[in-house]
Amino acid sequence: MAEGIEVGVYGGAGYAGMDLIEILVKHPCVELTFVTSNSFTGESVPGIDLRYVASEDAQLDEVDAVFLALPHKASAPVAAKARAAGVRVVDLSADLRLDTPEAYERWYKTPHPNPELLPVPYGLPEINRDRIRGANLVAAPGCYPTTTLLGLYPLLKNGWLLRDAPIIVDAKSGVSGAGREPKQNTHFVEVFGNFSPYNPGRAHRHVGEIEQEIKKIDPDAGLLIFTPHLLPVDRGLMASIYVTLDSEFSARDAQDLYEHTYCEEPLVTVLPPGQQATLKHVVRSNTCAISLTPVADPYLHITSVTDNLRKGAAGQAVQDFNLMFGLPETMALV
Amino acid sequence: MAEGIEVGVYGGAGYAGMDLIEILVKHPCVELTFVTSNSFTGESVPGIDLRYVASEDAQLDEVDAVFLALPHKASAPVAAKARAAGVRVVDLSADLRLDTPEAYERWYKTPHPNPELLPVPYGLPEINRDRIRGANLVAAPGCYPTTTLLGLYPLLKNGWLLRDAPIIVDAKSGVSGAGREPKQNTHFVEVFGNFSPYNPGRAHRHVGEIEQEIKKIDPDAGLLIFTPHLLPVDRGLMASIYVTLDSEFSARDAQDLYEHTYCEEPLVTVLPPGQQATLKHVVRSNTCAISLTPVADPYLHITSVTDNLRKGAAGQAVQDFNLMFGLPETMALV
Amino acid sequence: MAEGIEVGVYGGAGYAGMDLIEILVKHPCVELTFVTSNSFTGESVPGIDLRYVASEDAQLDEVDAVFLALPHKASAPVAAKARAAGVRVVDLSADLRLDTPEAYERWYKTPHPNPELLPVPYGLPEINRDRIRGANLVAAPGCYPTTTLLGLYPLLKNGWLLRDAPIIVDAKSGVSGAGREPKQNTHFVEVFGNFSPYNPGRAHRHVGEIEQEIKKIDPDAGLLIFTPHLLPVDRGLMASIYVTLDSEFSARDAQDLYEHTYCEEPLVTVLPPGQQATLKHVVRSNTCAISLTPVADPYLHITSVTDNLRKGAAGQAVQDFNLMFGLPETMALV
Amino acid sequence: MAEGIEVGVYGGAGYAGMDLIEILVKHPCVELTFVTSNSFTGESVPGIDLRYVASEDAQLDEVDAVFLALPHKASAPVAAKARAAGVRVVDLSADLRLDTPEAYERWYKTPHPNPELLPVPYGLPEINRDRIRGANLVAAPGCYPTTTLLGLYPLLKNGWLLRDAPIIVDAKSGVSGAGREPKQNTHFVEVFGNFSPYNPGRAHRHVGEIEQEIKKIDPDAGLLIFTPHLLPVDRGLMASIYVTLDSEFSARDAQDLYEHTYCEEPLVTVLPPGQQATLKHVVRSNTCAISLTPVADPYLHITSVTDNLRKGAAGQAVQDFNLMFGLPETMALV
Repeated sequence: MAEGIEVGVYGGAGYAGMDLIEILVKHPCVELTFVTSNSFTGESVPGIDLRYVASEDAQLDEVDAVFLALPHKASAPVAAKARAAGVRVVDLSADLRLDTPEAYERWYKTPHPNPELLPVPYGLPEINRDRIRGANLVAAPGCYPTTTLLGLYPLLKNGWLLRDAPIIVDAKSGVSGAGREPKQNTHFVEVFGNFSPYNPGRAHRHVGEIEQEIKKIDPDAGLLIFTPHLLPVDRGLMASIYVTLDSEFSARDAQDLYEHTYCEEPLVTVLPPGQQATLKHVVRSNTCAISLTPVADPYLHITSVTDNLRKGAAGQAVQDFNLMFGLPETMALV
Repeated sequence: MAEGIEVGVYGGAGYAGMDLIEILVKHPCVELTFVTSNSFTGESVPGIDLRYVASEDAQLDEVDAVFLALPHKASAPVAAKARAAGVRVVDLSADLRLDTPEAYERWYKTPHPNPELLPVPYGLPEINRDRIRGANLVAAPGCYPTTTLLGLYPLLKNGWLLRDAPIIVDAKSGVSGAGREPKQNTHFVEVFGNFSPYNPGRAHRHVGEIEQEIKKIDPDAGLLIFTPHLLPVDRGLMASIYVTLDSEFSARDAQDLYEHTYCEEPLVTVLPPGQQATLKHVVRSNTCAISLTPVADPYLHITSVTDNLRKGAAGQAVQDFNLMFGLPETMALV
Repeated sequence: MAEGIEVGVYGGAGYAGMDLIEILVKHPCVELTFVTSNSFTGESVPGIDLRYVASEDAQLDEVDAVFLALPHKASAPVAAKARAAGVRVVDLSADLRLDTPEAYERWYKTPHPNPELLPVPYGLPEINRDRIRGANLVAAPGCYPTTTLLGLYPLLKNGWLLRDAPIIVDAKSGVSGAGREPKQNTHFVEVFGNFSPYNPGRAHRHVGEIEQEIKKIDPDAGLLIFTPHLLPVDRGLMASIYVTLDSEFSARDAQDLYEHTYCEEPLVTVLPPGQQATLKHVVRSNTCAISLTPVADPYLHITSVTDNLRKGAAGQAVQDFNLMFGLPETMALV
Repeated sequence: MAEGIEVGVYGGAGYAGMDLIEILVKHPCVELTFVTSNSFTGESVPGIDLRYVASEDAQLDEVDAVFLALPHKASAPVAAKARAAGVRVVDLSADLRLDTPEAYERWYKTPHPNPELLPVPYGLPEINRDRIRGANLVAAPGCYPTTTLLGLYPLLKNGWLLRDAPIIVDAKSGVSGAGREPKQNTHFVEVFGNFSPYNPGRAHRHVGEIEQEIKKIDPDAGLLIFTPHLLPVDRGLMASIYVTLDSEFSARDAQDLYEHTYCEEPLVTVLPPGQQATLKHVVRSNTCAISLTPVADPYLHITSVTDNLRKGAAGQAVQDFNLMFGLPETMALV
């Protein structure tokens, strides 16, 4: 087993970055070498004996790998620099998730900063494990895509969705998903006692990422309708998914299909029939939990939940890291 | 104008009952005569100069009208007794909402206590105003049905839903909707930081009530798929509705249709394009707010919100009462 | 009775300003003429048919009175300008609460912008009604001082506090007290599930204001020890007060003393013995509620609660306004 | 080191019991043999491969030690039975914390069920380590006493409190402290947006336990004034302590005193000057954090925080267990 992998974290003062550090300090094969933060430079990193350094002062020649928990647009250039220095990279930003610069520009309304890096293995191990294993650069998926794709995967892989029928995802995220920078919409008074949709229909940037991955598995899948909501909780994410099944497959068989698909997956739990997936099943864990409701053929309702900062961000990034370095996949995660 | 209508409230210590009293004390034509509560008998009613009396001690001969905020099964017998005494009744329970004893037994798993009372005018004024006006007995709808039906009504009335396409309602309710009696699932620690579906698919009792009313307006409407969730807030309810439109109607025209349908309705607000309905739009008000997202033809997404204790219960009951007594419909409500 | 008093509100997009507008639109003698906000200029004021104007575009010659819900330092110059134009002023900021420029500079670390205005009647009607009545310029007290002073007043007025014994106030405020501008410490994720003291001991600016008013009533009162905390709720404020009594007065007599002192006060409620004041007693009302616990002579514990945006800000400002204009004191407030 | 200590948990479905199990499953020297719950008998214990058994079906002859997370009055008889069977006991209930049956009857209004067991070592390791080490029966303290006593200990031990001056503790607890059984006062709707004192002054049962332990360390300490409040969070507890110092000790020296007293304690953190202890410092950890504010001689303000289910219950019980069995004190706790 590898020992003492030297690791740096960029953007370690954001919510995903803080969870990442919490996981990494317990990781038996990781030595945390630096943590960057441009807003908190010089302050001590909570819980460990390091101080935040500015991004440009991080010493890439001292590390074997870096995690990038940076805003989109800022992340890809650091990834390029790290790769040039021979450092392996897990990117938690959106910069490397879309396969083409054109797709990136369409959803992020800005040219891709480093198109030469694309495409990059999409770091969702349950779907893409072979491409992640041993890779030098991986794009860890966002929280909405992870939760949605794991909820759909057994159907997509087997072609059991009715061709061209819409895939409806009513999603709800805890406020940490909106980032740590204070904004009007994350002010306590605005969120407390409230519940609100945002970017409904097909306006949210994650639609591009989700559809790209859906189509890779099932090119005949229908339109994605995706409405996220802001939940008055700190962490946790639910994707409530409504699909129409192909006539060859009955909703009553979904439970078996999902259990079979995920039976060997340590970080995905399919709940027994009748039990509903809730945020409490996953908050502060690195797992995804799924429950199924066979409404009436051909309609199936799926509830998929993750902790948006764990399986939806930091936990998954470490899962990717473990695969890249040939470590046991769930090391430091269970 | 009527003056001094003597009114009694049954079940005045529950959450809906308390909101009802809050509204009625400000109602210029109402004299509150008694308030019943079997759990709090003898204690003073918050905010007014009355004490709770036991249900059986309430003097029906002293009142012109009663509101029944009682559990289902307990409500219908009181309604029957009140009608026999010539007292007008607004029933907030589920007992009189379904048109037949068979439907009641199917959804409530118990024989109807007073089948002779059925059917009763369904107290959703925006849809059913003429039947409510002047009635002696009205069944005020539940919070989920009110919010869902108002969100669908303009499409149903005009037949713009694609025949047989499912109507998907992902609903979320504040905890007061579960009643005031302490239960495990309403314990603060269970709800705080959590979000959970319950009775998903077609298992919730309100499915019967919603489908009954949908079919009255549009017999060709498709299957209702309805998944309610418990939101960690005290009050407020959102119905997130996903529908497929008939090819003759474009999602882009929905905004006009809804604005036109509700332009004269004082208690329904259609938000301008691009603005999303949130709980804050309606909490502590007696209104319903609706926002529309034309996803892509033939798909339309509708967000409809109410305060579950106001337009979803007590406010609507007073709106019914005003119509029954020929008073201005929004008296004490705006 | 006065009719059609033309009123302007400065700073109408903050939390206190929004509550102020909510009260003023229901005030039968007020015509709302303008509302300023430099951050929201041009946007419509929620709930009314006006748009926010920039502070410098407000027409002072069109109004009889203004409310200033501005940050300290920005408020006094507007007050001076309004007075010069003959307009009456209720100032909700801290600028005019301290009687001398020296005290202001000590607590606010900046020279007073308009020392010529000082001193100004302190707008706590239950203590200072005569000076407010008919005044042209009033300084409405802050939320912590209001809640603390009303909790202490009956003892101070009668000299029943043990000379030089400390007055200990452990205070807790809802997050709206920290203002609407987004900051790290009001981010939902920082506040949710947390509870935190700030400016403990004697560091909070309100210490100066509270002590000034205490000493006016009882020059022998002891040192104020005051520790505020941030509560994870949107609104509501509690002052938990611990005092030592003079040997001539027994804690057992406090209930009578408080009931007697406040029996004619419409906006102060003394709860019956054994009942504890909680935020729910006052949230969204314009009242202060007080409960008393005679621990054991000479120790008395007092709990005083207000809604920090109502009796602690906007409600009290309107109470002052009513007194200034000779209107019934609780108009629009009950 | 001991290996495979067989352990049973009584009352494993309450909030403290659930945290206890969460800690014990990670404890390298513990084998969990049974978990009792009379309400959930037969259901599976979350997260482990056991089912709840009824209390009377637990096999005491299969275990080396038991933890009792039972209601008071029910716990002592089980402790007696376990001791008779030669099983070591950590009791988390209140039954064995008071040294005499008389004190128990005074505070719990019922005769002590097993007076022959008294007195028992009080399981607060930082104060009482020597008596816990190797003991067969330990009474783990409550959450309020733990947090209060650790906040006072350095002063008590050195006699730096002014003789007979009152010790004022304004305490706040998360709702899990009230237990898992649903009651009106723990209903989500009652707690949400609220904050409320209960049993103020000297009425709370923990006053007896706190005063007993204070007097053992400093017989001259003054009266305890203790007002607990219910905080709208799930877990976390703060004791805000206000004391008067002896003239020989200055508040400015408190920081040194506390740092010195606790420098070797792994589970107590004294925060640097100027930093305030908040719930976030301790939630889900097994530590106590303390911050100090030297108000002005002779007054000192102390903020002490714990997670009421961890250092205030389950974590501390395991700390006691480790001492009893000669294991490293923080095993499974850091």
